[in-house]
Amino acid sequence: MAKQLTLPRLLVEGADSGANLVYGSGFHPVDPVVFLDESTRRTLVVPMLEYRRAREEANNAEVFLPEDLGIPKKKMRSLSAWALYLLRRRGVRRVRVGGFFPAGIARDLERAGVRVLIEPASLYPERAIKTNAEIAAITKSQQAAVAGMRAAHRVLKEAEIGRGGWLRWQGRTLTSERLRDVIDGALLQHGCIARDTIVAGDAQAADPHERGHGPLRAGTSIVLDIFPRHKRTGYWGDITRTFCKGPPSPALARMYRTVLTAHRQALAMIRPGLPGNRVHEAVSDFFVKEGYPTVVQDGVVRGFFHGTGHGVGLDIHEAPSISRAETQLLAGHVVTVEPGLYDPDIGGVRIEDTVVIEKRGARILASFPNLFRV
Amino acid sequence: MAKQLTLPRLLVEGADSGANLVYGSGFHPVDPVVFLDESTRRTLVVPMLEYRRAREEANNAEVFLPEDLGIPKKKMRSLSAWALYLLRRRGVRRVRVGGFFPAGIARDLERAGVRVLIEPASLYPERAIKTNAEIAAITKSQQAAVAGMRAAHRVLKEAEIGRGGWLRWQGRTLTSERLRDVIDGALLQHGCIARDTIVAGDAQAADPHERGHGPLRAGTSIVLDIFPRHKRTGYWGDITRTFCKGPPSPALARMYRTVLTAHRQALAMIRPGLPGNRVHEAVSDFFVKEGYPTVVQDGVVRGFFHGTGHGVGLDIHEAPSISRAETQLLAGHVVTVEPGLYDPDIGGVRIEDTVVIEKRGARILASFPNLFRV
Repeated sequence: MAKQLTLPRLLVEGADSGANLVYGSGFHPVDPVVFLDESTRRTLVVPMLEYRRAREEANNAEVFLPEDLGIPKKKMRSLSAWALYLLRRRGVRRVRVGGFFPAGIARDLERAGVRVLIEPASLYPERAIKTNAEIAAITKSQQAAVAGMRAAHRVLKEAEIGRGGWLRWQGRTLTSERLRDVIDGALLQHGCIARDTIVAGDAQAADPHERGHGPLRAGTSIVLDIFPRHKRTGYWGDITRTFCKGPPSPALARMYRTVLTAHRQALAMIRPGLPGNRVHEAVSDFFVKEGYPTVVQDGVVRGFFHGTGHGVGLDIHEAPSISRAETQLLAGHVVTVEPGLYDPDIGGVRIEDTVVIEKRGARILASFPNLFRV
Repeated sequence: MAKQLTLPRLLVEGADSGANLVYGSGFHPVDPVVFLDESTRRTLVVPMLEYRRAREEANNAEVFLPEDLGIPKKKMRSLSAWALYLLRRRGVRRVRVGGFFPAGIARDLERAGVRVLIEPASLYPERAIKTNAEIAAITKSQQAAVAGMRAAHRVLKEAEIGRGGWLRWQGRTLTSERLRDVIDGALLQHGCIARDTIVAGDAQAADPHERGHGPLRAGTSIVLDIFPRHKRTGYWGDITRTFCKGPPSPALARMYRTVLTAHRQALAMIRPGLPGNRVHEAVSDFFVKEGYPTVVQDGVVRGFFHGTGHGVGLDIHEAPSISRAETQLLAGHVVTVEPGLYDPDIGGVRIEDTVVIEKRGARILASFPNLFRV
């Protein structure tokens, strides 16, 4: 095992899937590139289009064009050839790759005699522990998320309750779409974009991954889950609040109080050395004790059916997870804490902050008050 | 080969990398899911979080939770187990996967006795031919891109030339960042987002993948490359224009005229049945003939060093490419046509439209005039 850990790492990734590549090389590619990390020596193979930027952005990596590697002309556009000829140039015959490494390239390398070891875990496990610069970058994205939340809260405050309980704002029906535009506009002003901002009301709020659509209504839960990515750094932020315009039903009010308590308890538990699954189990047990078991019936899911948290960094979901998985929380981890309860007959409530784990416990990166009734 | 084409297709993909999954299943997942396409029967395995949406969005696919498949509890979060137990349930022992299928899952399946055939080409080659609904979706994103271009052009028109030739707008220096915010704001109003809008001036414009930063200047090229993705449909648009505030240098003016001629000639050539590489060669040859060879010297690249075009759809770069690759252009292809010339001592010029190939030739999806001097 120790020997395997010294083996060079090979990555073939583009911009969207490439968090490990960005982390390992410092380079944000647009098109797929090849990266060989021999620890003491790093090499990129990039298309001509990426050449200048790669040389500027990459941390101490030598940058080759495929044309530099003696690749036969008819293979010049094959990523497998880029990787293979680079490995030959470097005299590397065994490499480690991640589980999501392209199977087609792995097969081509093996056929050419390269030994390809697939890492069971992460190729860069050290990514989970954030540097100060990374924490600053995530904080910036989280501040953008808070700005989006503030803008949305202001709209909900200004909104009026019209006929049938439907919300109206600036003379028109307030929809999930309109509120999402307000949030995403605020994110943009903070250098961030978000494709999937969640503004889910009423029964839609009972589905944690529903983006939300259509008119919003008084007396029902409105879940706002804002996870922007900074356009320059690539780091994410993540925050969720749940609001209700006008008086909630007693069942919804009780659901909110329960999630808020779970959120506070989970935040208070977190400290370095604690297994993440202990936090998740505490939240799950608390919900069951309070009368919210997780059940699937006739295709409808009720209760708590996602993790209590996940790492945040160059990926929106990364290590460590705070779930049933047996992980250990460590100082420098940046994680979300986001218990939630869902029931299509009541609505949905989720409260989420992103925190950095420090010696004394969890520190919230950027804060927004827990206001429920607007 | 015919036999292999009837083999079930297996996909394990999340939102960002998942154009084939979206295409094959109709479902836009957030977290990774497993999709088995047996042509006559389609099946998804999704986490509980995705369950309701998958059942609503997926086209005629049966949706399973991992819990439905008899997976042992300790493997319940393994995507390999989801795939393996689904294949067993369906009695499938051989599958086709794409070249970018995760190598770790391919290995796990093979160890469990599943035969995994890696498709040398695309898993859904039919994706290149767009349906009318897809053309409408791309047109919508392209209209957003044109709206962004219009907004940017207005700003450049309003801008004044200040001391040293630096542009000023609304009392402040006009930077790439400010102009990008104007563009991205316009895209947002049209339901689209763009992470990497290019606003590159002067020497930065000579690098086709440089996003651009800092103050913009009169008399230099300003390349605006706008490629938004529609938040709901996931389809992209792509347009580029090059502007110059105030009089350009003679060298830049000549570069612009040359690219504009190449762009018009390429558009006029395109028709179903033509090899894409013929279009690319015509553009490349024209540039050489006009005195713009492609050369790399001391790490600086000059000339024309990207493809003439690429397919646009659920991916921003997809089949077919109009490049050195031997492809055939067909009716229903949606492609960009984007010749460009680059030289750090002169600047950069790229002119790009996105077109659908019809019986009679290329039809531009949404148009913006070719204005150079602002």
